[in-house]
Amino acid sequence: MDIRACLFDVFGTVVDWRTSVSRDLAAFAKQKNISGIDWLEFAVEWRKLYQPSMEEVRSGRRPFTILDVLHRESLDKLVARYGIRLGEADLDHMNRAWHRLEPWPDVVAGLAALKKKYIIAPCSNGNIALMVNLAKHAGLPWDCILGAETARAYKPTPEAYLNSCRQLGLAPSSVLMVAAHNNDLRAAKAQGLKTAFVPRPTEHGPGQSTDLAPDASCVDLAAKDLVELAGKL
Amino acid sequence: MDIRACLFDVFGTVVDWRTSVSRDLAAFAKQKNISGIDWLEFAVEWRKLYQPSMEEVRSGRRPFTILDVLHRESLDKLVARYGIRLGEADLDHMNRAWHRLEPWPDVVAGLAALKKKYIIAPCSNGNIALMVNLAKHAGLPWDCILGAETARAYKPTPEAYLNSCRQLGLAPSSVLMVAAHNNDLRAAKAQGLKTAFVPRPTEHGPGQSTDLAPDASCVDLAAKDLVELAGKL
Repeated sequence: MDIRACLFDVFGTVVDWRTSVSRDLAAFAKQKNISGIDWLEFAVEWRKLYQPSMEEVRSGRRPFTILDVLHRESLDKLVARYGIRLGEADLDHMNRAWHRLEPWPDVVAGLAALKKKYIIAPCSNGNIALMVNLAKHAGLPWDCILGAETARAYKPTPEAYLNSCRQLGLAPSSVLMVAAHNNDLRAAKAQGLKTAFVPRPTEHGPGQSTDLAPDASCVDLAAKDLVELAGKL
Repeated sequence: MDIRACLFDVFGTVVDWRTSVSRDLAAFAKQKNISGIDWLEFAVEWRKLYQPSMEEVRSGRRPFTILDVLHRESLDKLVARYGIRLGEADLDHMNRAWHRLEPWPDVVAGLAALKKKYIIAPCSNGNIALMVNLAKHAGLPWDCILGAETARAYKPTPEAYLNSCRQLGLAPSSVLMVAAHNNDLRAAKAQGLKTAFVPRPTEHGPGQSTDLAPDASCVDLAAKDLVELAGKL
């Protein structure tokens, strides 16, 4: 494989959103004297609204709207459902829990190793500000931020992958998409990118049943984590 | 000043395009047995076609087109004028001289110091691939790549500055535009950004007569280089 750049899914692949969001919100709730809420459940419920919110854009029913805005709309629905009453500044702080996610333990070392040889960039549905703040928080040494906002398209729409390659001035065949989700890799592969699978078997908690192994029909390379991936490349 | 991010002009402010392009082309010409060309003059002639090429886009006469393409069109005109005959791969290599520019001596240390406290990003008319490759070549530790391609507008159009701030999720008043060119800072200031001037008195060669000092009407802060700027902030 003649790879020049590695693009990464972020939520789930690079960072542990479920644990991070729930801990962040639980700590904030304690400060605000909000009790009686299962914040792991809350984080999962928030994430459940993620795909439907992007589908409005992917379907063309809504013009391109960045994820910070979609996240906030979903949060507004959830706080109403849970009976949480907070002001604008507090809700904005909660929404930015997605800017403060923690990386999986191998990520910082793995990205540093990959960066020596390749251009490394997120190809995430997160917007630029979210990705930049997350990189500052988690120490992710991206060369640039690509993904939904620069491509003006949400994954798995073909343009999300193709525009990212084009913006790097590279043919899709010179770009490796790295993800813990087979459906992301399937969509990337369909556009001519190379693909690498890294399992994150606790992304959805201890009982996870999906994406435990690579789907050979769409995965070119598999590694147990980003450090092993850097070694294999 | 409550600054959260520093945006940088690149050509002239961060890198010495005149010396770098001329040396790069002279070395390549030697390999190709092309003689009798003053490559410093060639670099300056190439740069003279830069503003007119972007003006086609700024005026609306042409849809947004990335700088690599504009550079190449200008190069094609110049090689015809100079009677240089080369194939596609060689012309592409010459065009990528702009991806291989050298930074001024203070830049890498200055950016590293600024990065500890601020988001740092180019706000250049260079496209994403050009900026990424340049950063890899010159060791520029950007947090993300902003500028003409992400903003879909060439400086000094207001959208080039405003879209860059918006993509960082920041008010213009929280963003510092850093440049060696007063006209760039004037345009940024008009959109509400803070401004810092760093002189590059040999950008245009030993006889430079422009931009030797900050214009007080549009400059909030001046420093002799990026290391001093980091100290002042």
